Amino acid sequence: MTTGEPLRVALAGLGTVGGGVIKLLDANAELIARRAGRRIEVAAVSARDRTKDRGVDLSRFAWVDDTASLAQADGVDVVVELIGGADGPALTLARATLGAGKGLVTANKAMLAHHGLELAGAAEAKAAPLKFEAAVAGGVPVVKGLREGAAANAIGRVYGVLNGTCNFILSTMEATGRGFADVLAEAQALGFAEADPSFDIDGVDAAHKLSILAALAFGTQPAFADVEAEGIRAVLAADIAEAAALGYRVRLLGLAEAGPGGLFQRVHPHLVPADHPLAHVTGSLNAVVAEGNFVGRLFFQGAGAGEGPTASAVVADLIDIARGEYGAPFAMPVAALTQERKAASGDRRGRAYLRFAVEDRVGVLAEIAAAMRDAGVSIESLIQRGASADGSVLVAIVTHEVAERSVAAALEKLRGSQSLTGRPLWMPLLG
Amino acid sequence: MTTGEPLRVALAGLGTVGGGVIKLLDANAELIARRAGRRIEVAAVSARDRTKDRGVDLSRFAWVDDTASLAQADGVDVVVELIGGADGPALTLARATLGAGKGLVTANKAMLAHHGLELAGAAEAKAAPLKFEAAVAGGVPVVKGLREGAAANAIGRVYGVLNGTCNFILSTMEATGRGFADVLAEAQALGFAEADPSFDIDGVDAAHKLSILAALAFGTQPAFADVEAEGIRAVLAADIAEAAALGYRVRLLGLAEAGPGGLFQRVHPHLVPADHPLAHVTGSLNAVVAEGNFVGRLFFQGAGAGEGPTASAVVADLIDIARGEYGAPFAMPVAALTQERKAASGDRRGRAYLRFAVEDRVGVLAEIAAAMRDAGVSIESLIQRGASADGSVLVAIVTHEVAERSVAAALEKLRGSQSLTGRPLWMPLLG
Repeated sequence: MTTGEPLRVALAGLGTVGGGVIKLLDANAELIARRAGRRIEVAAVSARDRTKDRGVDLSRFAWVDDTASLAQADGVDVVVELIGGADGPALTLARATLGAGKGLVTANKAMLAHHGLELAGAAEAKAAPLKFEAAVAGGVPVVKGLREGAAANAIGRVYGVLNGTCNFILSTMEATGRGFADVLAEAQALGFAEADPSFDIDGVDAAHKLSILAALAFGTQPAFADVEAEGIRAVLAADIAEAAALGYRVRLLGLAEAGPGGLFQRVHPHLVPADHPLAHVTGSLNAVVAEGNFVGRLFFQGAGAGEGPTASAVVADLIDIARGEYGAPFAMPVAALTQERKAASGDRRGRAYLRFAVEDRVGVLAEIAAAMRDAGVSIESLIQRGASADGSVLVAIVTHEVAERSVAAALEKLRGSQSLTGRPLWMPLLG
Repeated sequence: MTTGEPLRVALAGLGTVGGGVIKLLDANAELIARRAGRRIEVAAVSARDRTKDRGVDLSRFAWVDDTASLAQADGVDVVVELIGGADGPALTLARATLGAGKGLVTANKAMLAHHGLELAGAAEAKAAPLKFEAAVAGGVPVVKGLREGAAANAIGRVYGVLNGTCNFILSTMEATGRGFADVLAEAQALGFAEADPSFDIDGVDAAHKLSILAALAFGTQPAFADVEAEGIRAVLAADIAEAAALGYRVRLLGLAEAGPGGLFQRVHPHLVPADHPLAHVTGSLNAVVAEGNFVGRLFFQGAGAGEGPTASAVVADLIDIARGEYGAPFAMPVAALTQERKAASGDRRGRAYLRFAVEDRVGVLAEIAAAMRDAGVSIESLIQRGASADGSVLVAIVTHEVAERSVAAALEKLRGSQSLTGRPLWMPLLG
């Protein structure tokens, strides 16, 4: 059944995902050959440490010490870059591979966020494939879903749960009532969070992914520098409990929207209505919603990381290439991608959640209410809970629909107030 | 930005979806040209009634009275078949189009279920595109999700909510406690159900779609004749209430599974755990789960029918064709598709829900319990509710894991019993 020459692949980087790609190509070799119409074979591998045990037999592959030279290796059709990092060896290899007219498959969201436009141009110049399904939402085929599945639509918004570590932490806090630091430590012990977790929990990883999704959805140049990112460090168990009482779940969302004011891209914790599909995304799952002008709301969900799911996405890209079914990496030629100005967040309207930790004394509530009134923020509900261990009291507010600049103005009025015992938190309600 | 010749399309059938395709190609013309690299233009149209008002201006298109002749029309690259029906004019046109080496895009699940293998062979013989994203789950790109997104995986099971009419009825019964006939009448008044609803509510439409999904997932020839189908007519509001009390929702699922015993394909109402993503699929939404050996559980959800969503899927296919990104319709060459024997349902193991309407008198429960015992069916829970208006009593049972043949044997033992006032209902629990 297998016609034609095998597709010959070089693997750069043999961490968890690289090992998974080898295992997958071994386990499903016959099926993949039937589906792709030809075999997909690993021709060469390269990684920092040749001696490390990766649970797979590497002796059958050519070992290349100089990773960058994979781009010139004889008989290699496609390089799979799994080194990671926005610059350095990954970028060097990507440039060399595409410059040599060979295909590139990568899971490297940081590199694409920073250099995606350049790399897409390099691929286009040589008519070489550049594919990156694994860079966003792991195994979930959402790059394909936007590039192809929803391609007939003008997309209004694209948003989702893009970081499994944060979602694991938030949904564990939700299920157990435990605090952030406690659950983060557990996530680190389980291997769901890095020793230095800031890339995940401060929203940088999700911001990388969001910039890729936005480019695909809106036909814009990837604009990572314009993504605002706020992570989940400030979310308290009490915020999650208040949200639940109001009928919401707290999720870290990446959200991008195209409008007359420009392109808006933000990673921020949100309150998501309990009947919204994203409210049911728990643990380390990822999920993306795309809203199209004809299709309505499309929803994609699955494993956002890990050896098997990420390998699945990498090999799906290889199958597309083996079939000859590939084209412009960002869904249209580089020259067709527009450059949009960054939309001001202050113009955005919606409901908001605000939470204050305050002194337990007379007049505090009046001070907060006055700040809201003076900024033109109308309060829909307000809950004050009794004093916590440190003596402070939590005041949680949900506003009526209001411009974000008014919320910011209200918070500014309260800055430095002696009544507040900590920094206030605000979260948009997903509308 | 638009390079190359336009892709010229002939539309056969100008019902809701045909009108939607024209509206979409008008509304999003510039965006589609950027994404596809060329314009997509309607060159000719054909339908039964030329005078009917479809809300779109047809005067700019060539009108062809003899639909079959679209296949020979000059300057047409692709025919979009939206006539419907497994045979007749739709099949004649499909054969003529592919025979002429032109592309075919169709939303016709019945035709594909019955003649998909032949049509794929005809497409392959002429290297012509044959695409049918709109045939399954409307606007949800699940054909692409299986053919490409999950292509690296051996799929264990594929299942989902494939009929929006049934899901609207079941989820409305769930939300309101109303009965089947009442909600069906409302669905008909709202246009969500046909005057003759049997195609939907008896599971035939879902069975067509399931046979297409199974072929894509397992690399098998479409085998509609092997799909068992049971619809939702027998589901009572009381069944939905009992299921809810047990932590389940009732959903009509199409489910296909490949195993050593062969290929199992069935449409049947199921009890779905409340924390499963399919439990949150309400109204006329469709959703599909694919379980892959590396990616795990992928979930796709969106609008399963209607003008806009279906047109979105049809035009996504046209964009793939305009880009030149298409290949084997069923994911692999026709000769590579295997023919599997039908797996016997009796071998399947799982938990089951059984509901009996019985006389309100002594000994009835003992009779049911004895039948279960004699068939080797172990009861996990049993609920008996007081008499209803007609004097009968409902007994709802959930079994421990058991082979389906044992459940069938228990029901057989009770057949003709004077204690039963109606036909028992059984539903598998989704495991």
